[in-house]
Amino acid sequence: MDESALLAHPMTRTRVVIIGGGFGGMTAARCLRDVDVVLIDRTNHHVFQPLLYHVATAALSPSDIAWPLRTVFRSQPNVRIVMDDVVSIDRLSREVHLRHSAPIGFDALIVAPGSCHAYPGQDNWESCAPGLKTMADAIQLRERMLLAFEEAERQKADTGSQNRLTFVIVGGGPTGVELVGSLLEIGRAAIGSDYPHLRLDDLSIILVEAGSRILPGFDPALSEKALAALERMGVTVKLNNPATAVRADGVMLGEEWIASTHVIWAAGTKASPLLDTLGVDQDPSGRVKVQPDLTISGHPWIFVIGDGAYCLDQDGRPLPGIAPVAISQGRYVATLINEERSPAHRSPFVYRDRGMLATIGRGQAVAQCGPVRASGLLAWVLWCVTHIFLLIGLRNPVRVMAEWIWSYLTFKPGARLLCKQPAIWHKKSSNNRVGKMPGKNRKPLHRAA
Amino acid sequence: MDESALLAHPMTRTRVVIIGGGFGGMTAARCLRDVDVVLIDRTNHHVFQPLLYHVATAALSPSDIAWPLRTVFRSQPNVRIVMDDVVSIDRLSREVHLRHSAPIGFDALIVAPGSCHAYPGQDNWESCAPGLKTMADAIQLRERMLLAFEEAERQKADTGSQNRLTFVIVGGGPTGVELVGSLLEIGRAAIGSDYPHLRLDDLSIILVEAGSRILPGFDPALSEKALAALERMGVTVKLNNPATAVRADGVMLGEEWIASTHVIWAAGTKASPLLDTLGVDQDPSGRVKVQPDLTISGHPWIFVIGDGAYCLDQDGRPLPGIAPVAISQGRYVATLINEERSPAHRSPFVYRDRGMLATIGRGQAVAQCGPVRASGLLAWVLWCVTHIFLLIGLRNPVRVMAEWIWSYLTFKPGARLLCKQPAIWHKKSSNNRVGKMPGKNRKPLHRAA
Repeated sequence: MDESALLAHPMTRTRVVIIGGGFGGMTAARCLRDVDVVLIDRTNHHVFQPLLYHVATAALSPSDIAWPLRTVFRSQPNVRIVMDDVVSIDRLSREVHLRHSAPIGFDALIVAPGSCHAYPGQDNWESCAPGLKTMADAIQLRERMLLAFEEAERQKADTGSQNRLTFVIVGGGPTGVELVGSLLEIGRAAIGSDYPHLRLDDLSIILVEAGSRILPGFDPALSEKALAALERMGVTVKLNNPATAVRADGVMLGEEWIASTHVIWAAGTKASPLLDTLGVDQDPSGRVKVQPDLTISGHPWIFVIGDGAYCLDQDGRPLPGIAPVAISQGRYVATLINEERSPAHRSPFVYRDRGMLATIGRGQAVAQCGPVRASGLLAWVLWCVTHIFLLIGLRNPVRVMAEWIWSYLTFKPGARLLCKQPAIWHKKSSNNRVGKMPGKNRKPLHRAA
Repeated sequence: MDESALLAHPMTRTRVVIIGGGFGGMTAARCLRDVDVVLIDRTNHHVFQPLLYHVATAALSPSDIAWPLRTVFRSQPNVRIVMDDVVSIDRLSREVHLRHSAPIGFDALIVAPGSCHAYPGQDNWESCAPGLKTMADAIQLRERMLLAFEEAERQKADTGSQNRLTFVIVGGGPTGVELVGSLLEIGRAAIGSDYPHLRLDDLSIILVEAGSRILPGFDPALSEKALAALERMGVTVKLNNPATAVRADGVMLGEEWIASTHVIWAAGTKASPLLDTLGVDQDPSGRVKVQPDLTISGHPWIFVIGDGAYCLDQDGRPLPGIAPVAISQGRYVATLINEERSPAHRSPFVYRDRGMLATIGRGQAVAQCGPVRASGLLAWVLWCVTHIFLLIGLRNPVRVMAEWIWSYLTFKPGARLLCKQPAIWHKKSSNNRVGKMPGKNRKPLHRAA
């Protein structure tokens, strides 16, 4: 069978299978024409990941930044959505194997499974220091954060003092920095008004970075500016401090032990383990080394895009795992398929750098695009505009824009719902149940005379 | 100590403790002036329960109909919020005991813990047929419903057929009827467009009522109209059919067995077990028999309001457990406390019937107020207006109104997020995992030739 031809059986219609409904996979699906598309995702929705940390800090609700894939593609009858886990890819028989459904054959395959967290330490690190990749992660972090505030407020009200409310974020990349900023803002907004017994100095937020500067992907001058801004806001930043141990009650930095029941992991990622089933060359973090046309060698119609692709730019540097890269890779691959370009006639994928942005807080951001550098309010406005446009690109301009701006400006209170009391609630509180631990802290709270 | 005087120690400020942040408790807290209020709730939010079923059927998002109590009372510094479980009430020492915090003493106590589901059968009924009382219930029901549709779509796509998608709602009261109507509408909206392999007749919705008519609280003529409307919509209504057994795979009605993995309980409620700790007269369903001034006998400053109060109207009929009753009871009690009315000078609580409403579907409702009866579109408009005004009473008129109307009219897709894959997903699918069960259903789905 001629591998270079897209279609094995010309009398039937081409089927393109896409694994992953992230930025890369979704963009490809939206651009594909005149082919049957099967889009497989583990969840039923696309998440606008750049804003996921806003859900984790209860600034936005899940429905503000996520859309069901079935709704996104309602107007594209050629796209079929399958909510399932892909367990393996058989590139020779051209089939993907799913956990719950029958295997699905393909003429062309776009592999965009994204990445997951990488923990250098033992497996228990993940449970002690959850990360922020999926909506489920974000909701779990939100519950933990809200419960932490409730717990601290209750302790302070009962006993007049409380174990300092300490959040440790491991990893000084954009995620870590944005998480820290958002966390601090929510703290400031809620402490005093929502939690009258708490004071701002009950809250301490620590950003831990193994390297010598935060935002290593950015220009050193911008890293400096971001660092200064964070410290002005009251964040403790610890550079050159890799986490050497993570436990449920804190994190070890070399010799220093930081006690905290709220450690969040934003340090490292590795490509989806699904890519291992392709049986091709991978880099140490599991990314597949793709050809200039984003295919795997010997398979002109199997593409790997997004965080899972190890792809070099013109200067031979690997492209970062960010949304703009995945989106333009998705477009590129869709074009090759739409035009049925045979390998010989493909121009290599080229990523035009649209620059990088990171918010530090309201009115505070850093931006760089080629030689241009910006920081402070200007960069923040730039950030807002680009993100609103990215969001609008996805669905329902008016509504998204209205709701999102409103929510963002008002710290949408509706986002602060605690819909269940997870185990940690009971765990964290088990030591001061009524009757279980009497003694000085248990004095009934009677009217102040 | 003079029980009839509100304040035991006149030199200090009165403390009023309110148990429950539902309609009754929240209204009381909002009306109390010049006293310290401690509002205790198990969750951190107030839920607009009349619309809870919209969340359960993914028509609205949790944040559309729930507000954090701390935000609601941000502008009322005399109100302190405590998120905790009340384990018991000591009416003699005038203290409430909490699961996690120190006991709290009170001068006046308003007990408004609401009600929970009553299952006539064994305990396992609850796990097989979850009810709809809290936001957590609603979210769980939503996950189950969405997963059921995904599962049915996958089966149909793989095998061309599927076990009929059957939802059974037990209980023909307003909750059951509204749930059925909303479920059917979501089904109609999603089937075909979101789930291309499913057809409307794959979905079957069955409403089971033990009594001889649905909406027993309403005028028989309206019950008839509602029944006719439901049947026109394609709902199967089974009257005079008490559920005699509930299992994970279906429900037994007398001799008839209905297979369904989606049984929802809307049949009966009982008062919160917390009321038992008061040690006073209760009715069979656990409601406290209150005095004309809503107090418990011998304790002029301990009030029971809302679903937990067994309170008779002018004609000697017990008041129903609905929001308007709880709200006006909350206002009444707050006035007594604000005016420090001694028992001798209290006029008994009188509920002015504002009527009852129940939606059957978009443009379909029944309403009655005193002698007035309405149904169809007119009643539905009435329902929309009253609910919007009730909502506006709670928070942020503009936003709530805008968001809510918009969401309601658009079946807000954002509400349809599946943020985790609960156990049932794996349970329900474990019988068709790849490799585990080969055979005829496992044929690879290849291009239709």
